Amino acid sequence: MGPHTLEVPLILFETNRRRLVEELKKIQENSVVLLKGGSEISFYDTDTSYVFRQESYFTWCFGVTEAGCYGIINVTTGEASLFVPRYPDEYAVWMGPLKPLEEFKNKYGVHHVYYVDQMNEILEKINRKLVLTLKGQNTDSGLTAIEATYDGIEKFQVDNKTLFPIIANLRVVKTEPEIAVMKYVIEVSSSAHRHVMRMSKAGLYEYQCESEFLNYCYKHGGCRHVSYTCICGSGPNGAILHYGHAGCPNNYRLQDGMLCLFDMGANYYGYAADITVTFPVNGKFTPDQKFIYEAVLRSNLAVLNAGKPGVSWSDMHLLANRVLLEELKNGGLLKGSIDEMMDADLAEIFQPHGLGHLLGLDVHDVGGYLEGYPERSDRPGLKKLRTARLLEENMFLTIEPGCYFIDPLLDRALADPKQSRFLVPEVLERFRGFGGVRIEDDVRITKNGIINLTKVPRTVQEIEDWIAGKDNDEKYT
Amino acid sequence: MGPHTLEVPLILFETNRRRLVEELKKIQENSVVLLKGGSEISFYDTDTSYVFRQESYFTWCFGVTEAGCYGIINVTTGEASLFVPRYPDEYAVWMGPLKPLEEFKNKYGVHHVYYVDQMNEILEKINRKLVLTLKGQNTDSGLTAIEATYDGIEKFQVDNKTLFPIIANLRVVKTEPEIAVMKYVIEVSSSAHRHVMRMSKAGLYEYQCESEFLNYCYKHGGCRHVSYTCICGSGPNGAILHYGHAGCPNNYRLQDGMLCLFDMGANYYGYAADITVTFPVNGKFTPDQKFIYEAVLRSNLAVLNAGKPGVSWSDMHLLANRVLLEELKNGGLLKGSIDEMMDADLAEIFQPHGLGHLLGLDVHDVGGYLEGYPERSDRPGLKKLRTARLLEENMFLTIEPGCYFIDPLLDRALADPKQSRFLVPEVLERFRGFGGVRIEDDVRITKNGIINLTKVPRTVQEIEDWIAGKDNDEKYT
Repeated sequence: MGPHTLEVPLILFETNRRRLVEELKKIQENSVVLLKGGSEISFYDTDTSYVFRQESYFTWCFGVTEAGCYGIINVTTGEASLFVPRYPDEYAVWMGPLKPLEEFKNKYGVHHVYYVDQMNEILEKINRKLVLTLKGQNTDSGLTAIEATYDGIEKFQVDNKTLFPIIANLRVVKTEPEIAVMKYVIEVSSSAHRHVMRMSKAGLYEYQCESEFLNYCYKHGGCRHVSYTCICGSGPNGAILHYGHAGCPNNYRLQDGMLCLFDMGANYYGYAADITVTFPVNGKFTPDQKFIYEAVLRSNLAVLNAGKPGVSWSDMHLLANRVLLEELKNGGLLKGSIDEMMDADLAEIFQPHGLGHLLGLDVHDVGGYLEGYPERSDRPGLKKLRTARLLEENMFLTIEPGCYFIDPLLDRALADPKQSRFLVPEVLERFRGFGGVRIEDDVRITKNGIINLTKVPRTVQEIEDWIAGKDNDEKYT
Repeated sequence: MGPHTLEVPLILFETNRRRLVEELKKIQENSVVLLKGGSEISFYDTDTSYVFRQESYFTWCFGVTEAGCYGIINVTTGEASLFVPRYPDEYAVWMGPLKPLEEFKNKYGVHHVYYVDQMNEILEKINRKLVLTLKGQNTDSGLTAIEATYDGIEKFQVDNKTLFPIIANLRVVKTEPEIAVMKYVIEVSSSAHRHVMRMSKAGLYEYQCESEFLNYCYKHGGCRHVSYTCICGSGPNGAILHYGHAGCPNNYRLQDGMLCLFDMGANYYGYAADITVTFPVNGKFTPDQKFIYEAVLRSNLAVLNAGKPGVSWSDMHLLANRVLLEELKNGGLLKGSIDEMMDADLAEIFQPHGLGHLLGLDVHDVGGYLEGYPERSDRPGLKKLRTARLLEENMFLTIEPGCYFIDPLLDRALADPKQSRFLVPEVLERFRGFGGVRIEDDVRITKNGIINLTKVPRTVQEIEDWIAGKDNDEKYT
């Protein structure tokens, strides 16, 4: 998107394809992978459509930004071919010059480029025993990947079981070129958050902060999309985990004395950032706000310090829970034994979501639960975790402990003798309507531990200094 | 979206429903209209989704911004009922407090609100002879409206023919409350264009101008969406009519001496603006740029002056064509008889799109070609028109003549003796790579003629003054 933005090198996709071919060769050398790229999505029955976003597996393999393509990878030879739509001449008038196939070949660094209507012919020529297509469940959504198909595929022997677990698992660990893109999008998102933190003030509307974030990421970072709907909750709205959707469209006014919980992340060439900051509208934490904020920050830092290859993500979730409960007990909101609180799943009342998730081409990246890896727990709290895997080098994850005061959850806990015995109702009452705190970092797992790539003010002092204009961007770059 | 933005009154949707009931009563009084609202659209198989946008017919009737609803209108009584999804308790934690039905009733001013799972029961109770559903072709996209259906509808006698032409036709003419919203969104879009015109300069990227437009409309106008993908073509890109899509993502650099053709429009509560400005990057037109710009402007003004109720839109298209051809002849690009040029469809070479289109809840609004109204022409140029209707009071349309230098079209015309005899190749050659000019206004048809609601600098002098900072916003508000 211009010299001030990151150039995504073709080697990124070549490397991904090479890794895939290496794995598939072990199982079925005489095969060809067939993937279908995404299509344009109209607004209902009209002739306008959403700005096209490519499907993630297709991006991972080919990096193609145009709609309506297919791609194949010959497992025997490692060669990649792209199939692009054949447009009528009139396309040039409306959509721009018709690119010759050679131009696509150079743009995407594949071995061959054909038209989609040549798929049969080419697949016949390649003549592999099996066509491997993608079918499997996304364990966050429950939806199924869109399996490639076209008129004529029935002539071939199709295997839709082999590919999915392998490619999903490869996506979990990032390569060097991917790491560079992840760093970039996290950096852009961090700068945008810093910008928004400083411009936020009482009287503005939440969506005006969203708008500034979007503009910053696009104008300065070349990120046309964000990775998910911006969550800009102020005050009590901070306790609505997915605030910001069309039913709650970030339309409250920032008020003096409230906290902002802003969860937003840019998207660059498909790769996602996912960062949450929590800060006071007026730039100064109240004692209660400071207390809850620092409780969550300790929980966040405990995980940042403890995480490394081989450590179980479930254990990290429980660690974060334990630290939070200890802090809430210190603050007089809870009483009793921390071990017993953990047994009673008390933390889930305050943090009804998982500690964090894999991050990559999807904001909730794939591969969280695959056969041969730890299964989803059925314990409250833990069952919300989007992966229970052991950490591996070059995984990217979010670490996002939170503490929220959500009336229905508090009421349920107060009514449940197994949990109410730990609660101090008269203190908790003070926090009704408080909203919530979430501190979400995007991190990379390295041999020596976790590297936090998020560059935003995090301590109470840093946040107050930043909003007061005492620090400049250099501190965070 | 806050006190600085327009409040959309419930009377808007009540009026629409009342108009619909009046028409339907004439045909089938013993019936009930059943409409299905839009659903969330996921990014492929993931658990993230596009920010929800309501389907336009559903907005027109009910103004509901939430996904997953149905609505019915009892034609006999005129009563409207809304059916909202029944969410589990956990929804409150993720999506915000569960709204009681009473809250929806007040928010949307309908007579009754139920849960979607009560549809059968309520439709049985209402016990009308016919259930009228929406089915019909969108004549811009060729796609079909999504007909309401649900488990149990087979018990009722469904008529999917009656509703579509009536409701589509009603949408063509805007009511007073709709006019207020249209004015607002056109005003916001006009201001945003003025802002972008002034900040555009050599060295910036086209997408940075898009980003500023989006931010202006959202931050200052509360418009979370635009009505279509922003077209920010500079230089030769101005000749790509739908530039800006993912394959040509506004990623060129603005250069000194080039024109910008920026076609962008905000969306407010579903209602669309659609405005194009063309201006020089450096704020000063070259003689050739001035010549083509003024040719298009004369074409635009001719229509603005001639349009009024009863006038045929096809005639307006031809008028715009004729003025453009005259101007191009005056400038030495063309030679020969204008009448003969018109007979040879020569204007389509320079303006390969229609003069403009109906505007409303869809940017290419519905009702362009309905039974009983003029049919689509098969003449080049005219056949691109999205409607051939006679103008009526309180129609909203765009007037958007253009002049582009598109190599494949010029080459085709030069090779066609029927057209080449009018062309002056040595002069046309000078304009290769020029790009294009489009001047697109959003207008309302009134008894006394056309009111142009677009408030942007339009003459060469106005544009140069505006970019130079000589004028302020007051001139345009």
